[in-house]
Amino acid sequence: MTGRYDFASDNTAPAAPEAFAALAAANRGFSASYGDDEVCAAAAQVIRGLVDADAEVRFVASGTAANSVALAALCRPFEAVLAHAHSHVATDETGAPGFFGHGLGITGLSGASGRIDPEALAKALRAPDSAHHQAPAALSLTNATEYGTVYSNEALAALTGAAREAGLKVHLDGARLANAMAAGFDPKAAVKAGVDILVIGGTKAGMTPAEALVILDKSLVRRFDARLKQSGQLPSKSRFYAAPFIGMVETGAFVERAAHANAMAAKLAALSPFKVAHPVEANGVFVEMDGAAHKRLLAKGWQVYRFLDGTVRFMCSWATTEEAVEALGADLKAVA
Amino acid sequence: MTGRYDFASDNTAPAAPEAFAALAAANRGFSASYGDDEVCAAAAQVIRGLVDADAEVRFVASGTAANSVALAALCRPFEAVLAHAHSHVATDETGAPGFFGHGLGITGLSGASGRIDPEALAKALRAPDSAHHQAPAALSLTNATEYGTVYSNEALAALTGAAREAGLKVHLDGARLANAMAAGFDPKAAVKAGVDILVIGGTKAGMTPAEALVILDKSLVRRFDARLKQSGQLPSKSRFYAAPFIGMVETGAFVERAAHANAMAAKLAALSPFKVAHPVEANGVFVEMDGAAHKRLLAKGWQVYRFLDGTVRFMCSWATTEEAVEALGADLKAVA
Amino acid sequence: MTGRYDFASDNTAPAAPEAFAALAAANRGFSASYGDDEVCAAAAQVIRGLVDADAEVRFVASGTAANSVALAALCRPFEAVLAHAHSHVATDETGAPGFFGHGLGITGLSGASGRIDPEALAKALRAPDSAHHQAPAALSLTNATEYGTVYSNEALAALTGAAREAGLKVHLDGARLANAMAAGFDPKAAVKAGVDILVIGGTKAGMTPAEALVILDKSLVRRFDARLKQSGQLPSKSRFYAAPFIGMVETGAFVERAAHANAMAAKLAALSPFKVAHPVEANGVFVEMDGAAHKRLLAKGWQVYRFLDGTVRFMCSWATTEEAVEALGADLKAVA
Amino acid sequence: MTGRYDFASDNTAPAAPEAFAALAAANRGFSASYGDDEVCAAAAQVIRGLVDADAEVRFVASGTAANSVALAALCRPFEAVLAHAHSHVATDETGAPGFFGHGLGITGLSGASGRIDPEALAKALRAPDSAHHQAPAALSLTNATEYGTVYSNEALAALTGAAREAGLKVHLDGARLANAMAAGFDPKAAVKAGVDILVIGGTKAGMTPAEALVILDKSLVRRFDARLKQSGQLPSKSRFYAAPFIGMVETGAFVERAAHANAMAAKLAALSPFKVAHPVEANGVFVEMDGAAHKRLLAKGWQVYRFLDGTVRFMCSWATTEEAVEALGADLKAVA
Repeated sequence: MTGRYDFASDNTAPAAPEAFAALAAANRGFSASYGDDEVCAAAAQVIRGLVDADAEVRFVASGTAANSVALAALCRPFEAVLAHAHSHVATDETGAPGFFGHGLGITGLSGASGRIDPEALAKALRAPDSAHHQAPAALSLTNATEYGTVYSNEALAALTGAAREAGLKVHLDGARLANAMAAGFDPKAAVKAGVDILVIGGTKAGMTPAEALVILDKSLVRRFDARLKQSGQLPSKSRFYAAPFIGMVETGAFVERAAHANAMAAKLAALSPFKVAHPVEANGVFVEMDGAAHKRLLAKGWQVYRFLDGTVRFMCSWATTEEAVEALGADLKAVA
Repeated sequence: MTGRYDFASDNTAPAAPEAFAALAAANRGFSASYGDDEVCAAAAQVIRGLVDADAEVRFVASGTAANSVALAALCRPFEAVLAHAHSHVATDETGAPGFFGHGLGITGLSGASGRIDPEALAKALRAPDSAHHQAPAALSLTNATEYGTVYSNEALAALTGAAREAGLKVHLDGARLANAMAAGFDPKAAVKAGVDILVIGGTKAGMTPAEALVILDKSLVRRFDARLKQSGQLPSKSRFYAAPFIGMVETGAFVERAAHANAMAAKLAALSPFKVAHPVEANGVFVEMDGAAHKRLLAKGWQVYRFLDGTVRFMCSWATTEEAVEALGADLKAVA
Repeated sequence: MTGRYDFASDNTAPAAPEAFAALAAANRGFSASYGDDEVCAAAAQVIRGLVDADAEVRFVASGTAANSVALAALCRPFEAVLAHAHSHVATDETGAPGFFGHGLGITGLSGASGRIDPEALAKALRAPDSAHHQAPAALSLTNATEYGTVYSNEALAALTGAAREAGLKVHLDGARLANAMAAGFDPKAAVKAGVDILVIGGTKAGMTPAEALVILDKSLVRRFDARLKQSGQLPSKSRFYAAPFIGMVETGAFVERAAHANAMAAKLAALSPFKVAHPVEANGVFVEMDGAAHKRLLAKGWQVYRFLDGTVRFMCSWATTEEAVEALGADLKAVA
Repeated sequence: MTGRYDFASDNTAPAAPEAFAALAAANRGFSASYGDDEVCAAAAQVIRGLVDADAEVRFVASGTAANSVALAALCRPFEAVLAHAHSHVATDETGAPGFFGHGLGITGLSGASGRIDPEALAKALRAPDSAHHQAPAALSLTNATEYGTVYSNEALAALTGAAREAGLKVHLDGARLANAMAAGFDPKAAVKAGVDILVIGGTKAGMTPAEALVILDKSLVRRFDARLKQSGQLPSKSRFYAAPFIGMVETGAFVERAAHANAMAAKLAALSPFKVAHPVEANGVFVEMDGAAHKRLLAKGWQVYRFLDGTVRFMCSWATTEEAVEALGADLKAVA
C-alpha cells in the first residue's frame, strides 16, 4: 500500500470537487430508490444531452458489470463478441463477460495501439457461421482505447457501420470517454453511427464510483431493470450513482478535467527518456522499459505496472499535478 | 417520484452524517485501488472488531450481489440453499442467487414472521440426497428478518448448529444487522456458532451504498477477489465503500442510529389503528390493511407497499423523525 | 438393482422392435454427422407429418436437456417460465432449466392432477411486471401430464391462447406425447393453437434414447444448432437419434404401443384395491397407499416409488404385459 | 449430404458389429434406469479394468458435454483451464466449457502438432495469480491429439506431474483414446501419473453414441450424478450408453478396430502426393493442400475439410476400407 499511486491508474485519484459537491447535495431528504428518484431523472437528462439522443440511462456501480451486462444483452451464450485482443473486456475482467453472459465468447481482433484494424474486423465478419464455433453477434469498441489512443469520429463510425451491415450490435466501452472527448471525439457521432449501448465511465473521470449505462437501442429496454437487479446492478440508493454525473457534466468538468489529465500525459511523454510505445492521445503513457529500470523506478516509490504488451504504463488523471509529472520525469531520467 | 418516501423502505433515507463525513475524509490523495488501500484495511479492522474474529473482509457495492456471491461460494449449481420462503434472496432479488450461482436452487422453509421454523429446517435436512433434486449445501439466515423480527443469539445458533451438523455451510444476510444488534443480537455469537459468510449491510444502516462481505471460513478466501472481480464486485475506488463503515462503527452510530430506527417503528406500531401482523423487534411495521384503506393512505402521499404476506409494510430508518411518525399515525387513523 | 422394474417408470423398458429395427437399418455405411444426414432428414419429415407443420426438427439425446434448451430459448435469465408446480421441469430435473437458462426462474402454478388451472394461469399473467421479480416470458405445458392425465385439444389451446395473448411463448413437454395421442390428443391442434417449441419424447415411447425438438417458431431457428452444440446436444452420429422415430412413427407403432401402455394402466387401475388418486387417462396409475403397505409391496419385489403428491406411482409402457399387470394386481390385493 | 463421408471424420462411420451386438443384447427385459442397472455396472467394471483403478464410471451421450462437465467439476468460473490452443475444448465446442462452467476461461498453450509444449505449460504455471485474470485451476490434455499425434506415456506423465505440482487438477480428453492405445499409449500410466477425470470416447471408436466419464479423484464423486442430471447427461435408459463399451472392450475390438483405423491413416499418408503436415501416429492425416486442389477433390465427391491450422484433414475409422484409401489416394494424385 505504500508508495506513490499517482500514475498507477486513473482510479487511484479521489473524486473531483464537482463530483463530490453533487454527491453532498444529493444527500438530503428521502427519495425513491432503484432509479426512480429525481436525481437519477436529472442525471439521465444530462447524459441524454451529452449524446443528443432519446436514450434510456441507468446508473450503476461497476464498469466491469456495466460492460458485461451490456454484452450479455447483445450476445447470446453460443455467440461471440468481437473486441480488440487487448481490450479490457477481453483481458482484464477475469472473464466477467463470460460470467454475466453465460459463456459468451470473446473473439480478439488485432490492431495497432489498441485500435481495431478495419481489415481484421472485415475478416472476422466474413467468416461463415458454423454450429461448432461462437459466431459474432456484437462488436465491442473502447474509446479512449486501452493504450491511450483515441478513435476519430470517422474511424469509429466506419467500424460501427461495418458491424451493423453484418447484422451485429455495437457496444462502446467509454470507461475513458471523457478523455476521448477531450481529445476531440464526439459521442453524438458514435450514437449517429449506430452504437447500441454505451457505457460512460464516471469513476476514471474523477467521480466517486459511478458508471452510466446508455441504452440507445430501445428494443433492449424491456425488463432491463430486472436484468440489472438480477446482476446486482440496480442500486437501491441510486441517487448516489447519478449525482456525480450531474456535478461533472453540468459544470463542464467532465471534459475539462479529462483535458487536464490528457495534458499531463502529453507532458510526461515529452519528459520520458524511455521510448514511448503508443501515440499519446489521451491520459496514458506507455514506455519501453526493461525490468532493471522498472525495478529501479519502483524502488523510488512509483507504483507503475507492466502492461499486456510488455510496456510500462503511466496513467494521468484529473488529480495529477504538474509537480508530480516533473518529479516522475526526473526519476525516469535517473533510472534510465 | 412524488410523495413521501419516509416509510417506503430504509433505503430511501440519505446517508447519516457519520457516514458521509467518513466518505469526505477518505476523498483525499491518491491511494491503491481494488481493496489494497489503507481505508479498506482500517475498515476491515473495524469490522473484525465487530465480529471478534480473524475474518477476511471485502467491501462491495450491492447487497444483492454480496449475498448472491456468498451463496455461489457455498453452493454448487446442482445444490440448493435452504432459506426462509419469504427471505429476500428467495423472493426479492429477481433470481440473482441463481444467476450468480449458475442455477443453484433455493428451497423455501416455513416459519412465522420471517424466522425459520427449526422443525422445517430439521425436516429439510433429513430429506435423502437424490440425483434428481437439488440437495441442500447451505443455509441462509437473515437477521433482522424480512418481517422485522430478530433471531435471538440462541435461536440463530441453534439453526446454525443444525445446519453444520448436517454438513451445510451457513450464510447470514445482515442487510439489517445493525437493527438486529440494536435489538440485542450479537454478531460475535453468530460467528461463534459457525456462520461461514456474513454480509453486513451498510446501505440500510444509513451509509452511502456499501456492504461488507465478512469471510469467516478461511478456506473460502483463495481467489475470492477473482470471484468478486468476475462478478463486478471488486470496486476500483474501493475506499469509498469502506469509509462509511469506519465512520459509522467507530462512532457507535452504526447501532445507535439503528436503535433510533427501531424505536420509531415501535412508536409507529403503538399508534397504528391497523392490526400489527408481526412482532415489532427491529425497524419494520407490518399491518393488516385492506385495499381501500391502502388506497386512501397512498392518496395522502405516503408511499408504502403491500408485502409478500399481504400486509402493508412501513420501514423506519436512522432519518425517520418523530414528527413523521406522528403525522403518519394521524393519517393511519384517518384512513382506518 | 434387483426386483421387478416393470412399473417403476416407463423408461425401464427396452426399445420396441420397430425402434430397434430402424436403428439397425440406419447402422450402415458412412453418412454426414451433426444432423446433416439422410436419416435425420427423413425423420424430420416424419415428424413434420405428425404435427402437420413446416417445422425445424432436431434429434437429441436427453429430454432434460431438450426441455431446458427449449426454455432457455424462450426465456431470459431474469424472466420466469410458468409451469405446473409439480411438472417435471419444476421438480425433477435438479434445476436443469436454471442451469441451461442461467438462473431463469420457474413459477409453479396449481391445478388438479397435473393440469394447470386456467384461473391460476390467468392470475399469474395479470401480475404486474417488476424489476424485483422474474416476470413470466413463457408457459410450459406437459401432455400427458406428470399425473397421467391428458389435456384435451381444447384445454391445451385455451391455456396456450391465454399465454400468447399476454405475450408469452409456449413450450410443450411431450415426453409422453405418444400416450396423450393414444388418449385422443392431437399435436396438430397444439401447433395450431400456437405452441412455439415442442419436445417429442422417444425414450418413454419405446425407443432407444431419443427426443425430437420441434421448433415451430421459425424466429428461433437462427443459430439453434450452435445453441445445441454448446449445450452438448448436437450429436455427431445423429442418425442414431433420428432412426427410431422413423421406425416408430411410420409403422404407426408410436401411437399403437402407447395405446397398449394406456390400456395396461387402465387394467391396473381396475384391479387396484387402493384408491386411485388421479384420473387414469394415459399410462400412469397413482394410488393412495400408506408406508406399511408400500413396504410390503417393495418386499414382494415391485420397484415402485412414492411421488411428489404422496401417492405411489405405477407406470406402464409398451412392454408391460397383461400377466405382469395381473401379477401386480394380485400382490396389491395381498398387501392392501 | 451427398458425396463420400469416409474421411470427413471418424464419426461418419456406423457402429462396429461388436458394439451393435452388445446394444442388441442389452435391449431385453426391464431394468433400472439412470445408471443403476446391471449393464452399467458391468461396463463400469470393464472400464476399471482398462485403467486398472478403483474409479467411478458414468456413461453419457455426448463428448462435448462429458468434457465440459468434467472441466466444470475441476475449475470454478473465475479460474481457467490450460489446454492446447487448438484442442477440441478450446476451438470446436462452441464455447461449451464456458457454458457448462459458467464462464470458466480456457488459456491456450502452444505446441507442435497438437501436443502441449512443456515449456509453454511451465510458463503458464509460473504466472502469478491475480484477481484481474482467470488463473489456472486445471490442465486439459487430449490423447490422441487433435492433429493425430499421440503423447507417449512419459510425455503425458511429465505434463500431468507439472500441473499437479502447481496444484492443478488434470483432465484427459480421450475422444480418441482407442487410437492412442493402438499407438502404444497406456491409460493405466495416465492414471498413475495423476489424471483426475478421464473421458473415454466410444463414438469415434466405433460405437453408437456413448462416452465414459471416469472419475479417478474420488473427492469429485459426491453429488456427481446430480451434476450430470442438471447437465442433461444422466440418461434414463442408461444401459444403451454402457452396452457398447462391454462389446468393444471385452472382445478387444476397442483397440483392434482403432489399430485398423491407424493403419489406414498410415497407408493414406504413404499414398499422399501432398505434404503431410503432422506425424501420422493415430487415425488422422493432415496435408498441405491449396484451395484449388481442395476444390478439385471436393468435386470428386470426397467430403474433407480444411482444419484450424490450414491443412486439409482426412480421418480414418474402424470402417475405412483399403479400397477407399486406394481410391482416395488415386484421386489425390489426380488433383495434385
